[in-house]
Amino acid sequence: MININDVEYWWVTQNQTFEEEVRGGYMWAPKFQKDGKSLTAYTNVSLVKPGDIIFSYVNTRIVAVGTALSSGYTSMKPHTGDAGEVWANEGWRVDVDYSLVPREFKPKDRLDEIGPLLPAKYSPLIAKTGHGAQGMYLSLISEQLGEYLLRQIGVKPESLFFVEPDPFEKALVEDEQAIWENSVLSETEKQRLVLSRVGQGLFRKRVKLFENTCRVTGVSDDNYLIASHIKPWSVAGSDERLDGNNGLLLSPHIDRLFDRGYMTFAKNGDVFLSNELNQDVVQRWSLQGIENVGEFSEAQEHFLEHHRDYVFKQ
Amino acid sequence: MININDVEYWWVTQNQTFEEEVRGGYMWAPKFQKDGKSLTAYTNVSLVKPGDIIFSYVNTRIVAVGTALSSGYTSMKPHTGDAGEVWANEGWRVDVDYSLVPREFKPKDRLDEIGPLLPAKYSPLIAKTGHGAQGMYLSLISEQLGEYLLRQIGVKPESLFFVEPDPFEKALVEDEQAIWENSVLSETEKQRLVLSRVGQGLFRKRVKLFENTCRVTGVSDDNYLIASHIKPWSVAGSDERLDGNNGLLLSPHIDRLFDRGYMTFAKNGDVFLSNELNQDVVQRWSLQGIENVGEFSEAQEHFLEHHRDYVFKQ
Repeated sequence: MININDVEYWWVTQNQTFEEEVRGGYMWAPKFQKDGKSLTAYTNVSLVKPGDIIFSYVNTRIVAVGTALSSGYTSMKPHTGDAGEVWANEGWRVDVDYSLVPREFKPKDRLDEIGPLLPAKYSPLIAKTGHGAQGMYLSLISEQLGEYLLRQIGVKPESLFFVEPDPFEKALVEDEQAIWENSVLSETEKQRLVLSRVGQGLFRKRVKLFENTCRVTGVSDDNYLIASHIKPWSVAGSDERLDGNNGLLLSPHIDRLFDRGYMTFAKNGDVFLSNELNQDVVQRWSLQGIENVGEFSEAQEHFLEHHRDYVFKQ
Repeated sequence: MININDVEYWWVTQNQTFEEEVRGGYMWAPKFQKDGKSLTAYTNVSLVKPGDIIFSYVNTRIVAVGTALSSGYTSMKPHTGDAGEVWANEGWRVDVDYSLVPREFKPKDRLDEIGPLLPAKYSPLIAKTGHGAQGMYLSLISEQLGEYLLRQIGVKPESLFFVEPDPFEKALVEDEQAIWENSVLSETEKQRLVLSRVGQGLFRKRVKLFENTCRVTGVSDDNYLIASHIKPWSVAGSDERLDGNNGLLLSPHIDRLFDRGYMTFAKNGDVFLSNELNQDVVQRWSLQGIENVGEFSEAQEHFLEHHRDYVFKQ
């Protein structure tokens, strides 16, 4: 259980990396810039503790809120697309349990109230104009501002405060280790098991942040859908296994086709069917004529590329 | 490993209980008749040993062959339909790994060759006529006759002899116990795990003996189908969990509907859809107009009744 008095509030300005970071369940910043300097806005990531609360600020609005699941730790740059090209590869990472907010909030509209609450140094906003401060990634903000923002976005503090601090670490570190050391289970069973226990939680939640419909059949009712890994769990790195960018929400029969490599997708959403796919199945499952399922993000494409190269049966 | 010299051959006359016993993966006979007498043809079941070879004789033909997975043990009468009504409830049971034979064989057509090989006492056939002997359920036959029958049905002895004697016992007794005693796993995970490891083997094989097509979509390619439990594994008795009568081969999306109680079936094959089933899903998965999927057997109906009463969402 977290001691409420220890909780700190952070403001992260994500903009172009927002979707990828929220879906991926993390914050990441380089330790050093290419010129060798380190920025407070980046090294702040190393100071986050489990249970801290994080506001995601994107294009002038607070759109997501999260609870830190880990402390800041050293980690290589995730599968960023072009946005990350100028950064160095070694950085600080925090695992985060994000949710989209019930009400988006535009701080600039309440500058009179917020201005006095902004930190004197390393503020995320310019107090006078309400514009985002250049180069600020992560700012520490006061408890007062944190609680103010929670009220504005319609999130009760209790729903964040009393989260168990480490479902991620617990599942992946303690329990996973016990599972891997279990002599009764086969490798496949161990994989399935670790996946199933973790997968029902964070992975599914993260996939659903932006993928809320089976792209192939159009079903949107969650009861009927599977959170399917793009890059298979068995070959994915530990950072990739719970990364929501590595998932699609699919109908069970589509999941089977995708999982077995009978179907894959291009970044622009074009559908490829394997020559090995039984045409009788296509017909009996009424899957004729599906040509495009909508564009994928850069981070999804990172995983789809693996699927096309290694899972898809040409 | 079984010592070949110890293997004995048995001839079981199954007729009306054939499909149920083969799909269920067992032989069963009552210990006593209603009049209190015991029959050698029944008590023979108690003499079978793991690794013994069993020929299934049905309607004048040898149609299946199996390897015993257990010794004979005391067990209540399985979910028999009308065929078993006159028997007592306590009986002998042997678990069997059955396969349908490559070539059915009609002994009467080779009476000249077989006659001399039949046992003098408790013979399954009347040597003179080639007709089945009245009241014979299980007969011990000679190695010579056993090997002759294997040649006739086109099965190589090695494929039966060198089977590990106890995948059933191993999975269900040793390993299952270790899994249940594992303190790391939740109850649900234990169930899923035991099911998945056993399910990929015997259960699926048994379901497929007579169910080789998804009854709803008509897909018959095994790569695309799931062996789905009718009475859920979590509430099924230990005898019911690997009983192929308790399974249907379904497409993954149909499995989801059936598993969650959105769809069920009458014995005559009529399809019932739950009022809670999302009609959008029916339409997007192109499931409109499916009314009847073909009749089920008595033993399947035994499990379907449970599904209609306890799984189906009215």
